[in-house]
This record gives sequence, C-alpha cells and structure tokens, in this order.
Amino acid sequence: MVSSFALNGDLTAVKSGDVTGRVASVYSEVQRHRIDNPLPLPSVLLNPFKIVDGPASSAAGNPEEIKKLFPNLFGQPSTMLVPNSTDTLPSDKKLKIGVVLSGGQAPGGHNVISGLFDYLNDRVKGSVLYGFRGGPAGIMKCKYIELTPEYIHPYRNQGGFDMICSGRDKIETPEQFKQAEETALKLDLDGLVVIGGDDSNTNACLLAENFRAKNIKTRVIGCPKTIDGDLKSKEVPASFGFDTACKIYAEMIGNVMIDARSTGKYYHFVRLMGRAASHITLECALQTHPNITVIGEEVAAKKLTLKNVTDYIVDVICKRSELNYNYGVILIPEGLIDFIPEVQQLIAELNEILAHDTVDEGGLWKKKLTNQSLQLFELLPQAIQEQLLLERDPHGNVQVAKIETEKMLIQMVETELEKRKQEGKYKGEFKGQSHFFGYEGRCGLPTNFDARYCYALGYGAGVLLHSGKTGLISSVGNLAAPVEEWTVGGTALTSLMDVERRHGKFKPVIKKAMVELDGAPFKKFASMRDEWALKNRYVSPGPIQFSGPGSDASNHTLLLELGARA
Amino acid sequence: MVSSFALNGDLTAVKSGDVTGRVASVYSEVQRHRIDNPLPLPSVLLNPFKIVDGPASSAAGNPEEIKKLFPNLFGQPSTMLVPNSTDTLPSDKKLKIGVVLSGGQAPGGHNVISGLFDYLNDRVKGSVLYGFRGGPAGIMKCKYIELTPEYIHPYRNQGGFDMICSGRDKIETPEQFKQAEETALKLDLDGLVVIGGDDSNTNACLLAENFRAKNIKTRVIGCPKTIDGDLKSKEVPASFGFDTACKIYAEMIGNVMIDARSTGKYYHFVRLMGRAASHITLECALQTHPNITVIGEEVAAKKLTLKNVTDYIVDVICKRSELNYNYGVILIPEGLIDFIPEVQQLIAELNEILAHDTVDEGGLWKKKLTNQSLQLFELLPQAIQEQLLLERDPHGNVQVAKIETEKMLIQMVETELEKRKQEGKYKGEFKGQSHFFGYEGRCGLPTNFDARYCYALGYGAGVLLHSGKTGLISSVGNLAAPVEEWTVGGTALTSLMDVERRHGKFKPVIKKAMVELDGAPFKKFASMRDEWALKNRYVSPGPIQFSGPGSDASNHTLLLELGARA
Repeated sequence: MVSSFALNGDLTAVKSGDVTGRVASVYSEVQRHRIDNPLPLPSVLLNPFKIVDGPASSAAGNPEEIKKLFPNLFGQPSTMLVPNSTDTLPSDKKLKIGVVLSGGQAPGGHNVISGLFDYLNDRVKGSVLYGFRGGPAGIMKCKYIELTPEYIHPYRNQGGFDMICSGRDKIETPEQFKQAEETALKLDLDGLVVIGGDDSNTNACLLAENFRAKNIKTRVIGCPKTIDGDLKSKEVPASFGFDTACKIYAEMIGNVMIDARSTGKYYHFVRLMGRAASHITLECALQTHPNITVIGEEVAAKKLTLKNVTDYIVDVICKRSELNYNYGVILIPEGLIDFIPEVQQLIAELNEILAHDTVDEGGLWKKKLTNQSLQLFELLPQAIQEQLLLERDPHGNVQVAKIETEKMLIQMVETELEKRKQEGKYKGEFKGQSHFFGYEGRCGLPTNFDARYCYALGYGAGVLLHSGKTGLISSVGNLAAPVEEWTVGGTALTSLMDVERRHGKFKPVIKKAMVELDGAPFKKFASMRDEWALKNRYVSPGPIQFSGPGSDASNHTLLLELGARA
Repeated sequence: MVSSFALNGDLTAVKSGDVTGRVASVYSEVQRHRIDNPLPLPSVLLNPFKIVDGPASSAAGNPEEIKKLFPNLFGQPSTMLVPNSTDTLPSDKKLKIGVVLSGGQAPGGHNVISGLFDYLNDRVKGSVLYGFRGGPAGIMKCKYIELTPEYIHPYRNQGGFDMICSGRDKIETPEQFKQAEETALKLDLDGLVVIGGDDSNTNACLLAENFRAKNIKTRVIGCPKTIDGDLKSKEVPASFGFDTACKIYAEMIGNVMIDARSTGKYYHFVRLMGRAASHITLECALQTHPNITVIGEEVAAKKLTLKNVTDYIVDVICKRSELNYNYGVILIPEGLIDFIPEVQQLIAELNEILAHDTVDEGGLWKKKLTNQSLQLFELLPQAIQEQLLLERDPHGNVQVAKIETEKMLIQMVETELEKRKQEGKYKGEFKGQSHFFGYEGRCGLPTNFDARYCYALGYGAGVLLHSGKTGLISSVGNLAAPVEEWTVGGTALTSLMDVERRHGKFKPVIKKAMVELDGAPFKKFASMRDEWALKNRYVSPGPIQFSGPGSDASNHTLLLELGARA
C-alpha cells in the first residue's frame, strides 16, 4: 500500500480511495508530529455568527471599465462575520464544492484545503469536496478526486501542493469558459475555491461573473496565495506562504552571515526569489540586517543604472575595507534587472537586432545599438554578453530570466574594485560567493503563522460559499492579534481591480502590490541600512520553530504594515 | 556599546573586556533563547571520578615509523573517566590554558570553548583561559584574548567561530614551532586545546611531542571538528558539526523534493559540501531518500567513468519517465570529480600541456592528450572545457574545485537524453535545476546533539589537561544513549595515525575516514536506493527543532555505525 500516485497520470473522476497520496509512514518525526498539531480557529468561527455586508464597493482604478467587465458583480459589498446569538446558515443543505490550486507553490496550500474540508464536515455534513488536479486545467478537463478525511489527513500542516497539484493554465478563451461551465454542471457544483495569486484571483472573478451571467449556480471564492507577498491590500493583509518562505531564506542568510563574520574573507551575494516585487528581499533584510540590500522598486523609482548599483555596492565595500571588514552579505532581488530601465532598453534593442541581423564577430552589429545601450553592453561581463546573444527563448527573445544577477554583479564589482585599487582608493581583498535561494522556500513545512492563517482562510471560504457569496476573496484580518481575535470575511474581488490596456482592449487586473517606498517596512529598512552597511548588526533567525521560543512570531513586513495602519 | 570588533584588527594581548564580541541585544528570539538553554553533562562529570588508563596503544598503520616521529608520545594509553568515591584531581592548582579553532567552521565550536571554560570555572577556580585569535597563526603571533564569563556568554549554543575566529595556517617549520614555544612560555601555558580536523589534530600531536621533547610543561589536547564527518574512529565516534550541517542540508533537500513532486517537471541536481569524503551526501540521502545519490567512494572503488555516472543517472530518468515521473532529486558530493580516475588523468595531462605549450584555436594541442583523455575532454560540455583551459590557480594549475559539478552533469544528462530521444528510447521532458548547499551549513545554530556533544568534548578536554594528559583527543562515547550515560575520556592521537611518504619523507597523518562500502550506513543506503529511484519515498526532515518533537534525534550515520559496532 505504500506507493505514491502518478501525478501526471490520466486519472479522471477517481475517488481518493482509489489513489494513494502521501503516506505518513515515510514521514520524518517533525512531519509526523505536524499532522496532528491542533489548528486554532478565530473565535468568531467557533461560535454562532451572522454575515454582515458592508457598503457597496468600487474598484482600485477605472471603476467604469471594471463595471463594464463585471456587470453582475461590480459594486458588491465586502462582508464580515460577526458573533450572533444563533447560527444563520442552513445546516441541512449539502454542498458540492470544488477546490483548485493555481500557480507556483506556497507553504500552507494544503491547510486552505483542510480548512475548507473541515468547515464542510463540521457545519454542512454530507457535503462533497472535489479537488481539481493540476491547476485550472483540471477544471477544464474535469480531472478531479473526491477528497476524503483519510486522503487529506497526511497533508495537514505539510508543505507542497502535491495533494492535488497545481498548474499555470488560465481559463481565458470562450471555449475554456465553456469547458469550465460543463464541469460545473456535470459535478453540480455549488461552489469553487480558487487558491492563487493576483492573476488567478482575477481569473476566479471572471469565472464568478461568467457563472452568474449564465445563471449557473456555482459560486467562486478566491484565496490569496503567493510567497512573493505582492497580493495584498487593506482588507487582505497578507498572501499566504510569504511568512514561511522568508523565514526559510532568512535562516540561510543568517547562517551565511555568521560564516562571513567567522571566515572574514567572503562577500556573499544572495539572490532571492521574487521576480516582480522585492518584498521577500526586504523582509529578509529586516530579519537579518545584511550590509547591503538592493530593492528593485527603489532602483526603478530613482531610475538607477546598473553602474549606479555597482558603484553603491563598491562604495560600501571600500568603506568596510577601511574598517578592516573584508567580508559581508548582500541581498539582491531576483527581478533586479527588470527594474533597471536601461537594461530593458538594451534588451529591446538586442531583440530587434537579433531578429533581423546577424551578429558578426567583428562587432559591426554593435553600431546598431544606441549609445546608452552600447555603453551598458560594454560594461557587462563577457559571460553575460554571450548569454544575451546566444541564449534565446522559443520566440527568439533574449532570456533575461536566465541571467544569474548575483554572479553578474560579483564580476562587475570585481572589475570596479580592481580599478579603484589601481587608483589607490581600495586596498582590501575581495572574494565573492554567489547564492540563489528560491525553490527551497516554496514547499517548506508552513510556519505556525501560515498554517493557522491558511486554515482560517479555507474555513472562511467555506462560510462564504455556504452563505451564497461569489466573487469574493477570503479575508482574514487583525493578524497581529492572537488567532482567537482574527476577523473573518470576504472582500469583493472587483474592489481590488484596475484595468490594463492590452492589444487595444481593457483587461482587468489585480495590481501587484509593490514595495512602497513610503511604506513602513521600507522606511524602517531605509532608516537602518547605513548602520547595517558599516557596523555589523547581523541577526541569525535560526531554523523555523514549531514549538517553544520563536514559534509564534509573525514577519516584520506584516507587523510594520499593520502597525502603520493602526 | 553595541559594536562588533574588527576581526582582522591587530589586537594583541587584549583582555576580552576591551573588545566587544557579540551583543545579544541584536539576537533573534531563537538565538536569545538558545543562550540560556541548559546543557546537560554526562553523569560521570557531575560526580567524583578518577581517570583510568587503558593498555599501551599502537598506531593505525606503520607503528615503527610513528614511533620514530613521536618518540615521547608513542604507545600512550587511551584514558577513560570512571566514577569514584572521591575526586582525584587537585582543586587548588590554578591552570593557564589556551584554546584555538583551526580550519573551516563547524556548528558547535563555541560550545567546546564554553565547556572548557566551565570546567575550569567549576573545578579549577582561578584558572585563566586564553583564546588564540584567527587560528594557529594566533598561537605563533601570540594574538589572544583572555576569555571572561561575560565575553563567552552570548556565544553559548550559537553557531560560527567568531568568538575567536579560525585560520588555516599550520605550525610546521622549525621557526613556527619555535614561535609556538615562545608563546607557551610567555603565557606560562599549562595546556592548549586544539579544535580542528584531521590535519589540525595531527598538528596538535606534533606540538605535544615537541613541547614534551623540549621539556615545556604545556600539554596539548585535540577535539574532533569537521562537518565533513571524516574524522572518526572506534573511540572518536563522530566529529562535531556533521550533525547540524547535514540536518540543515536535509531540510533544504526535503523542501526541494516536495517542490519537485508538486511541480512535476524539474530534476533538481543538488551538490553538497564535502570534498574528500561523501559522508554528508550519504547522510542526507538516508534522511531524505532522493531518487539518485552519487557516492564518491563507490565511484572510485568501481573505477567508474564520468560517462558511467551520466548513464546511470540517465537510465533512472528514462525509467522514471515511463512511470510518468518527469521529476526527481539527485544528490552529488562536491568532491565527485576527484573520485573519477580518468578525470584526474585528464587534469594531469592538461596541466602538463598548459605549462609548456600554447593552446591553439585549431585544436592541434589536443593531439598531445592520450586517447582516453581526449575522449573525456570531447565528452565535456563546452563551458567546462573552457573553464578547464582558462581558469587556473596561481601555480598555473587547472582549478578543479571551481567546476560546478551539478551544472556539468545537467548538461551531460541533457545531451545523452537528447540522443536517447532520437533513438526512440526516451519520450519524457527534462529540465534540470542546480543547487549547491555549502556555506549555509557551516555556521548554523548547533542542534541539541552538537550543542551537548561539543560541551562535553570541551568539558572533557579540561579534565584531560587538569590530569596532566597530553597528545590525546577528547573522546565522548556511547552517543546513542542519553547524555547522562555518555562516556568521557581521551584517545592517544598517535593511535589514530599512519604515515604518508611525501617528498621522500614520512609524514604522520590521521587518515581521513572515508565512506566504507561495507559499512552500515552505505549498506543501508544501497539496500534502499533502487526503491527510492523509481518509487518516491521522499522524506522531508523539516527545520531543526530545539524543543518538542524531533529535537533530540541524532543522525543516521552515527546511529547505524554505533549499532553495527554494538
């Protein structure tokens, strides 16, 4: 019986009894004990409650356009659970609910599903929960398993998305919406919970709108997932997974810091996952106090060039060298290059040239570059130049994502330091070590915070569906307080939306929440960074603890943002 | 007052009151709580004991040569503490002791020093402990600080070596021995504790021999340190740091495994620190059950070629693909290349050619390679070929250490899979992701095991010096039992030694303990690996816990070796 199921197999409509998911007998001691770790719920969910709607909502931007795109849902109020003398939802009407994981892994996804399952089991007995397999494609192809208590059990408090797996497909075309409708009708779905990031929640809202327009009873509720931390707002204070991922990275950074200080001879350049926003890098900096932290949003706002960034790093290294510190730790967001305007310009020019011309060895092709782009190109280390010219994606475009930014920076810093040495401005020794922390953080065992937050999100999503809501995102608030005091409700997805013009059409988007330079987390960092640069204030958060000291702390970004709001 | 001291500064003979080491006020919650975590001692150390010598010892090999090299120390018995009705050591004679950290960082070093300090404080009041700064160079240059309770306090149970820092110098030449003697005399040292790996402990023994030969009273005791786990024997069952480092790497590997299973589309190639022996890789495999694990010692014993290793990996990938698993996790020891005889041969030939000839673009130089080396060279990915030709160390030698083995293997596997695809033997999709886990593991907060083991090693080293022993390595045994039942003693360093012939001279060495193919850990792995290859038996150990479930487990290697010995 000990066997894993083929994740890519062609299982359709199997009951979970027929497939064998995780088997706790091959679990580590920590994994095993996490399964039965009790999950506290906000007290509003433990006692009779009623659901109270707020005022009509608008949109984050361009409300007229959002209204046109969501004629049935626009203006919906957000909603909140409040204690009541008796329960107000029917306990006798069984529900058929589907759940899907969408996009990249984030610690806690399994607990959202567990929370949803437990709500149905606790309050709407006889209900059925279907897990769509492999992401939104599972909805379109009607690939699912029926989730049972036995099947779900070994996934409780565990990392990963492998209970039902995820996928990156979108439900976009009329045919795809049609497929989703067929599945909803075939399974007689009362509701669907979409666990995903900004794109997936936009998609969830389009699905909700479509079902309502077609008079299909299936309601759709979203849940905020992404380790990147860029799906958040006043009412949705955090996306799940961010807390765990940052703590995993911060553990490693802290270890590397102590190593740097003990060895005294390496500069560690640590690239951190997070292509669009630099929240992870900022949070890791607040947890560990590195000597240098590059925040993409600041680079973009100040229109810094790659040379500016290099010079900043080199300046700090030179000053530290005068203090006899020839070591340090530098954090860089994965998406740094995307934030530098001149790099975007160079890439665009290269794509154009490579599409139409041949790259001659003599370098005549370079004459087609603008002056600024040529200067930048010549500044880049040779390996990066070659990478830009040689490695292209299937559309023939330069693959920026493949550039190992930390290694590129090490080389550029080396070159600049060599120059300063010859000018007599630097006397130290520089040795760079590169790191990329990414995949390690997406599937770790969720922290107590993420485990509890996700459980409440899932449980709350169950309430929202049970009460007939659609087009909302499950919202759990007051997160700085103990779990009992957390608030539970739903936020109108349309209220988070704006439009973008693409190919001449308006497209609804939930804007990614970027690092705000006047936000509390960045301001705190900015007020400390000069001290961190020259004096060593390294903090080593250590490994995530599940009990005892340090096990109940949440992250700095969340607390600072909540504090600034309070 | 919150300030770190300049580790590379020229502080000589400062009292620790004058320098500011770590300041717990910038500690994380977990760091802070670890400081005061009580450290249990073996009960033999808590009650009156006497010291009992065993029989005369010999050497691990070539005892006649070892006897010539250590005329004063050869044959010394190992020694063991046993309970006694009264204490047998004088409590009124104050001691002056030095301690030094030598070589690479390993979690627990600070606790060895704390244990030594506490022994002196508990049992030989009024004694002084000097910490030599920056490794053996600190002894030679007489750079030290006097350790005080206040100075040591924030380092208790903390990772890193930054309390006094480490270094890689050796005390080898007559002049260097002379310098060490001068320091010993100047500080009136009764004893010296050398915390290091195989080389450093050999050095410690030479120092002990030299002091005795010169009638200098300074005794020398070693302590077994290395995350690589290759300093061990029957009487020294483990080197400290291995437990913590492996658990840190295994946490990351476990996370990556869940990610691989959740995503279903990546093969993660994980290179693990450990250049000489593959203990770390083997231990991580036992903790996590990867699909493929390459053990250097097996590659060497079976005289495998790089092509053999590639084919083995590709065979498993093809078989997994038939089972619909297009993902997996592969562990590779950092030192893999050094274990492959044909690679050594190629490197030797390249060094010879590069020293005398120019490498022409047309490739005529390749004719100077033997057939076997030429074939291997042509098999290597282009980037690796270039690296071999271009990057050389200051002596003009090819820099094998810089080769990123995991990336090289990904490219070779890609090429071979492409070939099999064209032959119709493989239909899957392959995407490789590379990782190197190294620096993250050297300075983590020590596990409970390493924290306690190190504390006992240091405390025991104090006993050995107090009782007048020299040339022993602190030995704590019975490690599978609870701490109270651990044994404490010292093992004659000469008994661990053999000789190697270098430049026509015999040189004493403590032979590195390699992975033994008929040892219990490898046999256990070998009995499981076929199952792990095709079925997925991933185990995710999770983050190191300091309290609660999982916090008291030791590692598989140690338990299997102790079990096989029992």
